[in-house]
Amino acid sequence: MSQRNPTHGVRIAGTGLTSFGEHPDRPAWDLFAEAGVAALDEADVTPTDVDELYYGNFVGALVEEQGHQAPLVAESLGIDAPATRFESACASSGVALRHAVADVRRGDVDVAVVGGAERMTSVDTAETTRMLATAANALYEIGPGMTFPAAYALIADAYFDAYGGSRRDLAHVAVKNHTNAVGNEHAQFQSKITVNDALNAPLVASPLGLYDACPITDGASAIVLVSESFAAARDVDASVAITGTGQGSDRLALQDRAALAHTEATANAAQAAYDDAGITTNQVDAVEVHDCFTIAEVLAIEALGFVEPGAGIRAARDGLTRRDGALPVNLSGGLKAKGHPVGASGTSQVVEMAHLLRGDHHNSDAIDDARVGVTHSAGGTVASTTVHVLERVT
Amino acid sequence: MSQRNPTHGVRIAGTGLTSFGEHPDRPAWDLFAEAGVAALDEADVTPTDVDELYYGNFVGALVEEQGHQAPLVAESLGIDAPATRFESACASSGVALRHAVADVRRGDVDVAVVGGAERMTSVDTAETTRMLATAANALYEIGPGMTFPAAYALIADAYFDAYGGSRRDLAHVAVKNHTNAVGNEHAQFQSKITVNDALNAPLVASPLGLYDACPITDGASAIVLVSESFAAARDVDASVAITGTGQGSDRLALQDRAALAHTEATANAAQAAYDDAGITTNQVDAVEVHDCFTIAEVLAIEALGFVEPGAGIRAARDGLTRRDGALPVNLSGGLKAKGHPVGASGTSQVVEMAHLLRGDHHNSDAIDDARVGVTHSAGGTVASTTVHVLERVT
Repeated sequence: MSQRNPTHGVRIAGTGLTSFGEHPDRPAWDLFAEAGVAALDEADVTPTDVDELYYGNFVGALVEEQGHQAPLVAESLGIDAPATRFESACASSGVALRHAVADVRRGDVDVAVVGGAERMTSVDTAETTRMLATAANALYEIGPGMTFPAAYALIADAYFDAYGGSRRDLAHVAVKNHTNAVGNEHAQFQSKITVNDALNAPLVASPLGLYDACPITDGASAIVLVSESFAAARDVDASVAITGTGQGSDRLALQDRAALAHTEATANAAQAAYDDAGITTNQVDAVEVHDCFTIAEVLAIEALGFVEPGAGIRAARDGLTRRDGALPVNLSGGLKAKGHPVGASGTSQVVEMAHLLRGDHHNSDAIDDARVGVTHSAGGTVASTTVHVLERVT
Repeated sequence: MSQRNPTHGVRIAGTGLTSFGEHPDRPAWDLFAEAGVAALDEADVTPTDVDELYYGNFVGALVEEQGHQAPLVAESLGIDAPATRFESACASSGVALRHAVADVRRGDVDVAVVGGAERMTSVDTAETTRMLATAANALYEIGPGMTFPAAYALIADAYFDAYGGSRRDLAHVAVKNHTNAVGNEHAQFQSKITVNDALNAPLVASPLGLYDACPITDGASAIVLVSESFAAARDVDASVAITGTGQGSDRLALQDRAALAHTEATANAAQAAYDDAGITTNQVDAVEVHDCFTIAEVLAIEALGFVEPGAGIRAARDGLTRRDGALPVNLSGGLKAKGHPVGASGTSQVVEMAHLLRGDHHNSDAIDDARVGVTHSAGGTVASTTVHVLERVT
């Protein structure tokens, strides 16, 4: 547990989530309005208090034929402040958050609304898969027909070749995350599965089966960030600070990477975030990682420095990352069970972590006095990534 | 002319532009690489010196079926630093610049590459027009069939109703900007037109004719921003500082605006930028505005505070904004004649202004000792906008 006293002064004053699931009739900006209003209410601020809006969205121009969504989501909340859309594929709102944190730190912004939204189920699954594929390299990957399940299957094979591991190991990741989602009222799947359920499910792209993949999800998430001085003047729970932020990039195409079983972008983002916060990994109580596929969680906990390369594959199976383990990972249920509305996922992890650190998370009883949490968001096959450090400071 | 001594410490050390025109076979990231390499060369920095990349792009996911372009453009330049795509329709790279300026000011970033790119002519003009329309409101505007020429025609009609004015007045804006583009080796159109050329051209959407509209353009622009301390250690011309930055948002749909003949987002962004720089409009020597249509230039110079509401329509005709006028506007040729590769336009204006303030612009002889310039970038029907103040500081 951390003994530090963070002083950077960026506080989370409000959080909001829609239910994650199928909302095919609700535009992204309508979903964002619901999450945003909840966050503003919790922070006890009005739209006119907001200095700036940071919004993550990925496939709105394709699925909804609506680009330029930032002014639209600002309007949906009654916010007249500057509004910017950030796009880094599935890390879009994670990247938005990094820029918001920087602006609040500098003192230019006292009150920021940060979040993201995505509507994905209004077109059929094959079409959604095609649109999501635009996060990969058009020339070398999309053109030849690669989809994301196939990309992560290649990564899983490369990992197995390098370190060993099995479909059963991955199944334990899925089982863990489904278990964690039980009781999460926002989660798309709130029921347990068994290892055999996962192993007997249809293969999506060998070695990955249906339960190795996150679902396609509509939803939104929002956070109200405030400066420490603003928080001090309000009677709201702003006890959680964002004390570290980092971002990394890698080659877009898998073929151009140094290795498939390592994610350099995550490692770089993590180091930057830990340095920024002045923490080491052994101070961290809980982690939310980008588990768009079970193998992605394995890669993430290794690149984040919580286990050695090659040790991540056994972490769920051996119990380390389970709810009752030494380092619980994805107590929310993760993208796997909570769902993955891509533009919303990055900040939804931060919402979950804030609740955990405040003690009002559905899995709060898993950790006694959680004080430091890490969140990890990734775009494409981890070509873009952000890592944030959250700490309870009062 | 300004007597100020700006101290914010954000310098332009390098600039790069591709030729603006038709490059249907070159992906946006290839165009960006050309502009980026030129900017890095001019700044005498290597890709490994770069701390962060800020990239504007609008329709890449639609036209090129390539989303998630930020890591790809970083890769094209050999940059391993965090890379983020900003999307605010046609103001995308303007918005990227605002965030870059903030980060350099804070001291987190010593060397930033900022720019944008767009490939638009690889699909036919009707398809490009449809894709660009996603910058408007999908429900109220795109769905019923509105395109951007139609939107700006409505705005022109509203302006004429409020203040008077004629197609001939607008023709003078087009003539001015074509004249200014003569000698600009990067411009899509480098030849003069006459008022009669404009008046006799086919109507696109009454009252706007062909010469009231900017062309469809492929191209890229890039800037290397450095901190003052980094600049001091290099033997390059970093005599131009960005001393003010502002951003504004408005309702996305025209029907939801308080008025069509005023652009609140520009007015708000301008006030923020002038306050930030500590300047007033009478200190400004030259301006680059977002003239996607001639009427847009009229609205811009009014909202930027250079002329009173209703006076903008006569500014080109009466000579005020011409090359030899008291306040030259769009000495580059503007979007009208230089071209409008949407994601690239915002920073291309800054490239042009930097050259003007350094004295190596093709129209440098128009202004004796230019010291302060303003650039204005707008997205949609001015639902998103940024304004920047540039000053020569040595």
